[in-house]
Amino acid sequence: MEFQSCFPIWNKLTQAQQDSILAGLTLRRIQKGAMIHNSSLDCTGLLLVKSGRLRAYILSEEGREITIYRLLDRDICLFSASCILRSAQFDITIEAERDTDLWIIPAEVYRQIMEESALVANYTNEVMAARFSEVMWLVEQVMWKSMDKRVAAFLLEESAIEGGDRLPLTHDTIARHLGTHREVVTRILRYLQGEGMVKLSRGMVELLDTKGLMALSDI
Amino acid sequence: MEFQSCFPIWNKLTQAQQDSILAGLTLRRIQKGAMIHNSSLDCTGLLLVKSGRLRAYILSEEGREITIYRLLDRDICLFSASCILRSAQFDITIEAERDTDLWIIPAEVYRQIMEESALVANYTNEVMAARFSEVMWLVEQVMWKSMDKRVAAFLLEESAIEGGDRLPLTHDTIARHLGTHREVVTRILRYLQGEGMVKLSRGMVELLDTKGLMALSDI
Repeated sequence: MEFQSCFPIWNKLTQAQQDSILAGLTLRRIQKGAMIHNSSLDCTGLLLVKSGRLRAYILSEEGREITIYRLLDRDICLFSASCILRSAQFDITIEAERDTDLWIIPAEVYRQIMEESALVANYTNEVMAARFSEVMWLVEQVMWKSMDKRVAAFLLEESAIEGGDRLPLTHDTIARHLGTHREVVTRILRYLQGEGMVKLSRGMVELLDTKGLMALSDI
Repeated sequence: MEFQSCFPIWNKLTQAQQDSILAGLTLRRIQKGAMIHNSSLDCTGLLLVKSGRLRAYILSEEGREITIYRLLDRDICLFSASCILRSAQFDITIEAERDTDLWIIPAEVYRQIMEESALVANYTNEVMAARFSEVMWLVEQVMWKSMDKRVAAFLLEESAIEGGDRLPLTHDTIARHLGTHREVVTRILRYLQGEGMVKLSRGMVELLDTKGLMALSDI
């Protein structure tokens, strides 16, 4: 799979723009658990996931985490190049949830093309609007949904990403996605097990009743 | 005050773009409390506040509210024209907090200019990135800050906007900004009054100790 076939607007770029991107492009393998990007000062560049999975999250001063969005194959991460957007004033951390291969377009290369090309600037707009929608969804979840509904929704999302019902997840991992404490997740998972919706074993959550989870999660 | 002097990139537009905007532009007065925009289906257009104050918020199914951002003089509202951004998939409501005069650029006029102009597309990007930063700030507040800190921060923000220490605010209004219940706000305001930080009277909160409120709010 080539970069050219993964980057959505490739065929609409000029030859000079294509040459400039290819000259700066690097392909990197990131080990599971490694951090790729760590603050707004850190201007890694635009990331395009070739294969694998990234997680963008924020950290509290006390070290609590909440996932803001996740990036799968062919997804683009803009905020790892937030230096090209003067008004993007927030710190986000990006780590690999799986071993991940990704392309990096240097921030300066992308900025130059975006400045001259309405097409690229509008494409960037759409990427940002998509992330914006995800964050607005998160605000709604955090504000209006109880944690049991959020755990149910997370398990269903995870099952969709993994393509199966046996999910290799610790309670701590779920807590870090949802911005809560491990004990809270453990209590909710035990409740779900009591209701016959999941089966728990070490480092594993198995979904037994996805319809029940969907009803609970209000999706 | 003219539209031309309020719209930040006016002088960089071509004559044709300027003509097209002026031909479609309308100036409207919105009464305090009136709704300007009510869902993603409603594509009002790009709003530019001439004078007054707007509030963008989301609603829960149960009718609870939380303020996402506020717009003051010369601020631009993009999501009232979310139809020009296919990937913006969320419902936001915009209402006037004060009697507000605003210009409306029809969505279709703006979309056409944005499509052809890298300058306008990049300007739009910056406006969206600024709102994104506000929403990320909100996520941090909601996730990591207790409600007493958030009430203190809100009172300080309100004081900065109003330019004074006597704030005409009901407990219900504060609750609707912060996405909580009136009773919670009342309890916290009484605590702040007990600590000598505010003085309460009907429909009014007076700030007595802004340093104390700043220390509490962690700003």
